[in-house]
Amino acid sequence: MSTLSTLIVNCLPLTDKERQAFLEATESTDVRQEFVGRPIQRGMMGWKAEVPQELRAEATAVIGNIPPSQCPQYSRLQWLQTWSAGVDAYLKPGVLPDSVTLTNATGAYGQSVAEHMFAAMWALMRNLPMYARAQSEARWHDLGAALTPAGATALIIGTGDIGSHFATLCKAAGAHTVGIRRDPTRPADGIDDMHGFADLDALLSQADIIALAVPAAADTTHLIDQRRLFSLKSTAVLINAGRGSAVDCRALAEALAADQLHGAALDVTEPEPLPADHPLWREPHCLITPHVAGGNHLKATEDRIIAIALDNVRRYAHGEPLRNVRR
Amino acid sequence: MSTLSTLIVNCLPLTDKERQAFLEATESTDVRQEFVGRPIQRGMMGWKAEVPQELRAEATAVIGNIPPSQCPQYSRLQWLQTWSAGVDAYLKPGVLPDSVTLTNATGAYGQSVAEHMFAAMWALMRNLPMYARAQSEARWHDLGAALTPAGATALIIGTGDIGSHFATLCKAAGAHTVGIRRDPTRPADGIDDMHGFADLDALLSQADIIALAVPAAADTTHLIDQRRLFSLKSTAVLINAGRGSAVDCRALAEALAADQLHGAALDVTEPEPLPADHPLWREPHCLITPHVAGGNHLKATEDRIIAIALDNVRRYAHGEPLRNVRR
Repeated sequence: MSTLSTLIVNCLPLTDKERQAFLEATESTDVRQEFVGRPIQRGMMGWKAEVPQELRAEATAVIGNIPPSQCPQYSRLQWLQTWSAGVDAYLKPGVLPDSVTLTNATGAYGQSVAEHMFAAMWALMRNLPMYARAQSEARWHDLGAALTPAGATALIIGTGDIGSHFATLCKAAGAHTVGIRRDPTRPADGIDDMHGFADLDALLSQADIIALAVPAAADTTHLIDQRRLFSLKSTAVLINAGRGSAVDCRALAEALAADQLHGAALDVTEPEPLPADHPLWREPHCLITPHVAGGNHLKATEDRIIAIALDNVRRYAHGEPLRNVRR
Repeated sequence: MSTLSTLIVNCLPLTDKERQAFLEATESTDVRQEFVGRPIQRGMMGWKAEVPQELRAEATAVIGNIPPSQCPQYSRLQWLQTWSAGVDAYLKPGVLPDSVTLTNATGAYGQSVAEHMFAAMWALMRNLPMYARAQSEARWHDLGAALTPAGATALIIGTGDIGSHFATLCKAAGAHTVGIRRDPTRPADGIDDMHGFADLDALLSQADIIALAVPAAADTTHLIDQRRLFSLKSTAVLINAGRGSAVDCRALAEALAADQLHGAALDVTEPEPLPADHPLWREPHCLITPHVAGGNHLKATEDRIIAIALDNVRRYAHGEPLRNVRR
């Protein structure tokens, strides 16, 4: 066994027990592992991968989002496992040779994003953002009627991991769920009826809840534009946690000001961060969160990222195909 | 048939179709009905019962919360059906003779209150009240970790209509539900494990979600006091939509300021309204709503109130026992 043959540099902030599990995953193989992650980063909203200089040229595999600018220093690299779902930065020309396998943490973030969307939907339906603001002025004042997902129609645009999880939560709260995806013949958990994008206009005007979880790859710029916003039910709530550009934010501000819908919750905006002078900041029926639906905001997300990496380390050590391959 | 024999004065804000259903419920009986409700009140947060002077002495039954001070004018009254769940005002000495049957709208409000509690729970778990306030300052800033009911333990104190409905929602979101009621041998929908009040201390310190939905009749003043608040998990969320006095609000402000729990949502307070100088108004981890969980905030509540009244009108006209009898 050569110490140079195969080396995984692991940047995850692992507990002792988790580190032990990674070691067991390569037992009786000639794969060596170096753990450079800092446990103190556990529970932090962003992790940093810092690999000592001397390991960079030696590593055949890295677990962690190393700075793309440093990638050329990893001359022996065969495999990069990111802890993010997005890998755009590593796909740019000159960052990694085509020979490097790239795997990501898709599947780790669905629960967190879907639950955030669900929380935001309920908050809008019960007018909670407005009550939270009234509280700053110690104002005890009834803001009127509330809404419910029970018996409502939820339209979920984009029915991948996130959209499917969100739909399942809505169904459990009594909603009828309608999905829109490119290939409507493919079913998804939690979706009662699946449609293609051709039906979007007809479905939008019937929906009580509109949830956008379109993947970054889809061509969905201003999918929800002024015309579509003005076609919504006046009691509709709109939630976007996919990509900011899917909603025309200027048109949304106009539509909310004109009471064309009940409310909107945006975790992503266009542009991002939303400029301080954007009218949506001051729109009472809008709830803005600063791209926090995903990330490492839930402990369960961290656990899943680590579980995905562990499974792939075992596969790598045993010459099996990796999961979550993006290139 | 004497026009004086039996007269129901109905103050509900009925649609034409609903009025027709009430008429059909007394068909081929000698019961006469007068409809004095104003449809314009439909969808308003409070209804007002205004009965013309000449009908007061004639009515044998009234549907609606007539002013208690006017009750002595209803000299022939046999039955009062309120649209509220609370009937305390009509039980006071001198308001109604003991011979008057009193029925209420219990069951109409459970969905609305439980859903409000559920919305508030999610809002606290995803830090939404703080984001809503940060929005007033156009602040794009990550407020850190979020929580989830998935895999959490929800302790529901009071497992009647409201608590049971809330528990069912929590279970569907992946929580384990523990109930506390006076008679723990009686099960309730949505509750995985039922306990008596003797187990309260032990259960509180294990709970991730604590929901109070104790009925007004129970002796629960400061059930959640300083000692108990300081025994909670630092990640716990507390929701009270039962009676304000069940939580010591001064002690809660101290506990939140000391990070003894993650957050609290109060729809009821002690006293009510909460005075403008109360520290809870300025506590970032507290969400205060002005007793709006129930009432007529949901259309479904209005529909249920009317359905209960309609069923009782039919029973009254046919000499059958009434439902929801409170006295």
